[in-house]
Amino acid sequence: MSLLNQIQSPEDVKSLDFDQLTELATEIRQKIITVTSSNGGHLGPNLGVVELTLALHKVFEAPKDRFVFDVSHQAYVHKLLTGRNDERFDKIRLTDGLSGFMNREESEYDSFGAGHAGTALSAAVGMAYARDKSGGDEHVVALCGDAAFTCGITFEALNNITSATKKMIVILNDNEWSIDKNVGAISTHLNGLIKNPIYNRINDAGSQLLYHIPGGETIRKIGQKAKRETKDFFVESSVFEHFGLRYFGPIDGHDLKKLVDYLEFVKKLDYPVLLHVITKKGKGCNVALDEPEKFHGTSPFDVQTGNSRSLGKPAPENYQDVFGKALVRHAKLDSSVIGITGAMPSGTGLKHLRNELRDQYFDVGIAEEHAVLFAAGAATRGLKPVVAIYSTFLQRGYDPIVHDVCLQNLDVLFCMDRAGLSPNDGATHHGLFDIPYLRCIPNTIIMQPSNEDEMCDMIATSLATKGPIFIRYPRGTGIGKRIKETPAILPIGKAAEHKPGNDIVIWALGNMVQTAEIVAANVEEHTELSVGITNARFAKPLDEQLLEEQAGSAKLIVTLEDGAVTGGFGSAVLETIQDKDLQVPVCRLGWPDKFVEHATTVGELREQNGLSDEQITTTILNHSSIKDHVSLHKPLEV
Amino acid sequence: MSLLNQIQSPEDVKSLDFDQLTELATEIRQKIITVTSSNGGHLGPNLGVVELTLALHKVFEAPKDRFVFDVSHQAYVHKLLTGRNDERFDKIRLTDGLSGFMNREESEYDSFGAGHAGTALSAAVGMAYARDKSGGDEHVVALCGDAAFTCGITFEALNNITSATKKMIVILNDNEWSIDKNVGAISTHLNGLIKNPIYNRINDAGSQLLYHIPGGETIRKIGQKAKRETKDFFVESSVFEHFGLRYFGPIDGHDLKKLVDYLEFVKKLDYPVLLHVITKKGKGCNVALDEPEKFHGTSPFDVQTGNSRSLGKPAPENYQDVFGKALVRHAKLDSSVIGITGAMPSGTGLKHLRNELRDQYFDVGIAEEHAVLFAAGAATRGLKPVVAIYSTFLQRGYDPIVHDVCLQNLDVLFCMDRAGLSPNDGATHHGLFDIPYLRCIPNTIIMQPSNEDEMCDMIATSLATKGPIFIRYPRGTGIGKRIKETPAILPIGKAAEHKPGNDIVIWALGNMVQTAEIVAANVEEHTELSVGITNARFAKPLDEQLLEEQAGSAKLIVTLEDGAVTGGFGSAVLETIQDKDLQVPVCRLGWPDKFVEHATTVGELREQNGLSDEQITTTILNHSSIKDHVSLHKPLEV
Repeated sequence: MSLLNQIQSPEDVKSLDFDQLTELATEIRQKIITVTSSNGGHLGPNLGVVELTLALHKVFEAPKDRFVFDVSHQAYVHKLLTGRNDERFDKIRLTDGLSGFMNREESEYDSFGAGHAGTALSAAVGMAYARDKSGGDEHVVALCGDAAFTCGITFEALNNITSATKKMIVILNDNEWSIDKNVGAISTHLNGLIKNPIYNRINDAGSQLLYHIPGGETIRKIGQKAKRETKDFFVESSVFEHFGLRYFGPIDGHDLKKLVDYLEFVKKLDYPVLLHVITKKGKGCNVALDEPEKFHGTSPFDVQTGNSRSLGKPAPENYQDVFGKALVRHAKLDSSVIGITGAMPSGTGLKHLRNELRDQYFDVGIAEEHAVLFAAGAATRGLKPVVAIYSTFLQRGYDPIVHDVCLQNLDVLFCMDRAGLSPNDGATHHGLFDIPYLRCIPNTIIMQPSNEDEMCDMIATSLATKGPIFIRYPRGTGIGKRIKETPAILPIGKAAEHKPGNDIVIWALGNMVQTAEIVAANVEEHTELSVGITNARFAKPLDEQLLEEQAGSAKLIVTLEDGAVTGGFGSAVLETIQDKDLQVPVCRLGWPDKFVEHATTVGELREQNGLSDEQITTTILNHSSIKDHVSLHKPLEV
Repeated sequence: MSLLNQIQSPEDVKSLDFDQLTELATEIRQKIITVTSSNGGHLGPNLGVVELTLALHKVFEAPKDRFVFDVSHQAYVHKLLTGRNDERFDKIRLTDGLSGFMNREESEYDSFGAGHAGTALSAAVGMAYARDKSGGDEHVVALCGDAAFTCGITFEALNNITSATKKMIVILNDNEWSIDKNVGAISTHLNGLIKNPIYNRINDAGSQLLYHIPGGETIRKIGQKAKRETKDFFVESSVFEHFGLRYFGPIDGHDLKKLVDYLEFVKKLDYPVLLHVITKKGKGCNVALDEPEKFHGTSPFDVQTGNSRSLGKPAPENYQDVFGKALVRHAKLDSSVIGITGAMPSGTGLKHLRNELRDQYFDVGIAEEHAVLFAAGAATRGLKPVVAIYSTFLQRGYDPIVHDVCLQNLDVLFCMDRAGLSPNDGATHHGLFDIPYLRCIPNTIIMQPSNEDEMCDMIATSLATKGPIFIRYPRGTGIGKRIKETPAILPIGKAAEHKPGNDIVIWALGNMVQTAEIVAANVEEHTELSVGITNARFAKPLDEQLLEEQAGSAKLIVTLEDGAVTGGFGSAVLETIQDKDLQVPVCRLGWPDKFVEHATTVGELREQNGLSDEQITTTILNHSSIKDHVSLHKPLEV
């Protein structure tokens, strides 16, 4: 029996010696490579923290001690060690499998859920404050990647540590990468700490001392000595000292013994500390070491070659790549067009711009608020900034969108990928709220294309239009539509009549036009009613004129959107119909008012939420305004 | 003629000598004291930057050179020097007067508008990047208070400066205050810089050199020398050095000659610099010096005594104080109740908790994202955090609200002041979007009380209820309702029938119940219809049962809310009526889809936006469902 299969809880880790732990680390790496090569997942980050996670569980007492992992995509090892090494792990990120992130509902060992970067330190400060107030003695350990230090929340938290708590442990897991290679001054600073020979010398001396003197009390004395030395030699030499944290490191994050020694050491200190640990993203998997960006979060792949598992036939291009390439075409013609990303050139498709026109590409790091404000500032000086970002991460930039971009009506284009579902990632990554949270803001224009060619039209239209514009599109591939050589400039606020029919008219936004096609055919099959489809194109401004015309003759208007139905596109249709004093019933369909889980496919999640093609058909046929028209000779199969 | 009245543009400042500038400073202070004592406004911050603003306009070439002021409540002096010293200044913050903030629409000298803190550095980085791309030679000068450095966006921007631009000037206007006294590690660090004698010695030497050698080239050489010296002596001695900025200072922000010399000096440097300037909030006004918090942003006051101008009769207590005192009562009974503010103990009323139960009070600084996450972390460990915040500033915490609090369904209470209008401040401070941006998030409960007693009930109810809860209430006073000794626990999602009547039913949220009373009486006077009023209490969950009952018999449902009508409370009513397949028309009334300006009173802004009592009455009477019932013998006066 493998060592890994004997681990039922962290208690079992504590009983292992270093040789066994090393063997266990190898088994864990193998397990993670096997599962992610099959399921996809965050391979690189998890391979980087195998020893660190083992050391944490060897030294601390989870779940009493609280581990808060930033982003928490690097929690696979933690999950394997905390009673979840079973069929749920083999299905991680898939239907009925574990979440790919920490999840409070999944395990008492998961102190705090995440998915977005930069939250761990802040939440941990809150926990440590609560611990101090209640007189508890548990440890609070925040594990933050170096990328978290490009994010403002981390600094807000840093600024509060010493006033909020007397004791907490911050582990800086430094692999020089966020998702892409890290950017900015802090990244340079951390490199400086690593390369600074004085630091390393002291560290070696410090760790020598730690190795040779067993026992808490003695180590504590050494600790005092180290503290004095640190103070004497390095007053304010690391940025963390300015924030009142004692800095230790950097140490090798794959040296189990050193990790355990240092963690035992910092565990006994009664002040806030930061332990700088250097890890190698993708360690133990050659293909992941060779291409850290690709294997940060990967789709299923061949372990030997690193190639993505073939999907049989060549799929249409992903929306992100269609966007990225279209932006390159515009940027070549107009040097004032610039692309801005928050550490996600690949996920957003902005890598195409980076590769072809480096000068018109800017990566701000995981700093979404700054991304929006930087764009706003640049827009006041004549540039045409395009912020490429996932819908869910744009939530970070909400205040600058309201207060800086929209209030000043600046020409910033937001291209929001992952609007809709990100099925394997789950609730933290779905982009379901952007229509309601954006359409209440004055001056916004919100579009969603029904295919990749229309997306290119929308990009061209947006760059030719003043004011803040938001284009949302889903994760994954387009429908394979050929992209015109010259994009069309679409009239703002005009919908397109996609299929004639006037008894029922489906107002579909974006990718829901394809769903509408199937649903319309189904409904027509079961009734003698004609079902029209309108490709809304704009969630704001709505094509009120067309809606008014159609509402005048229709028995029912149906709205279909890939977003939260509460306050969303359908509500905008409803508002317009009410404002125009029309009496037609409206049936709004979209994601219900609950957080949507992860699953293998979007199809499964639609099915779970009443949004499969068949369920939508049934909902429409059951609507009071339609029921009488349903043919009885073709009963519904529900 | 006073010197001030001779200043038509910054050109006129440049021609003055230091004696004249000193005289001008005195006149400006007098002017600001006179106007703010009459209008209210940001007295302390403006008195603190008189010399600094004069020096900026003497040294730089606005509007070509770009000044970006953080928060920009300290731009009064700038406005006086840039062609706005006229009747509009005398009416600053009032109807037809200047905005109390920088405003791009108001003047070409206002490079970037603001109102929320922490945006200046970030926007300035975007401007400097655009300048470098276009080959421009203008200077970009960001003026940030020390409080901006408690805000994460500032750090995100700091982290990006050196990768974005070769040259920009950051002026740290350090008065040790945000709105309240500053908090956190950075504040401590800045104090350390001020007190560090080595710094001061070098500064004195540096400024001596600057004084005695006129002319650009020579100063540039000195600059090189200073650079080397700084580098040799102070490698990474200030936190800013870690971010690649050269640090100069601290210098006396009221010494005009020194300011001009230093600004001339840093203007010639070809790398990003930070100049640390020490100013005195409220300088030149004794009452403002004595009570910096009170006179940060003040209501009209007596210049001699500092007393607020009497309003004649004693007004009912402000909502913020009712909230603050109610929270103290709960916190005394339950030590797990804690109050969290982002640097606004007075504005939010949390000062009552600070004064009485310091241990249950926490000020995070201007760090709204951290405030929310800190609360989330604390909630996981059994505390009951209450985040006291303005509606508009909660926009900063949007992602943590979605991703951390609501997704994990944590017990955090948000008490949102200034929901509705903040009339003197204007668009940056109105809290109009919170209902749409919150009600689309699963797990949210959103309430608004119709009076101060009901607010106390809602606080008690929220603290006794699981999950994330949001209570919104307007700026200003309650209605004078006596507060019960023991608050009532309200049933979640139940509305209250406020006035009987079933032909028209007005669903009013919060303070709009009072408006509904007047409107209902007006409508009843002009028709034979009975007009009921429902005090909705909850924007989410809605009382669907009551709504269904009332909609069954009413000719018209009217919704009234003090928030954006797009996607707001009225839309929630509309959605419910559609979901229940009811056929009653709905007339939604709230703030229209545009940014609302500043004005002297809420009443004027309502009038401008069709929301006066009379206008609302007319809108209802003109509704197609009602028109036929309007009595002709009482014609409307529109």
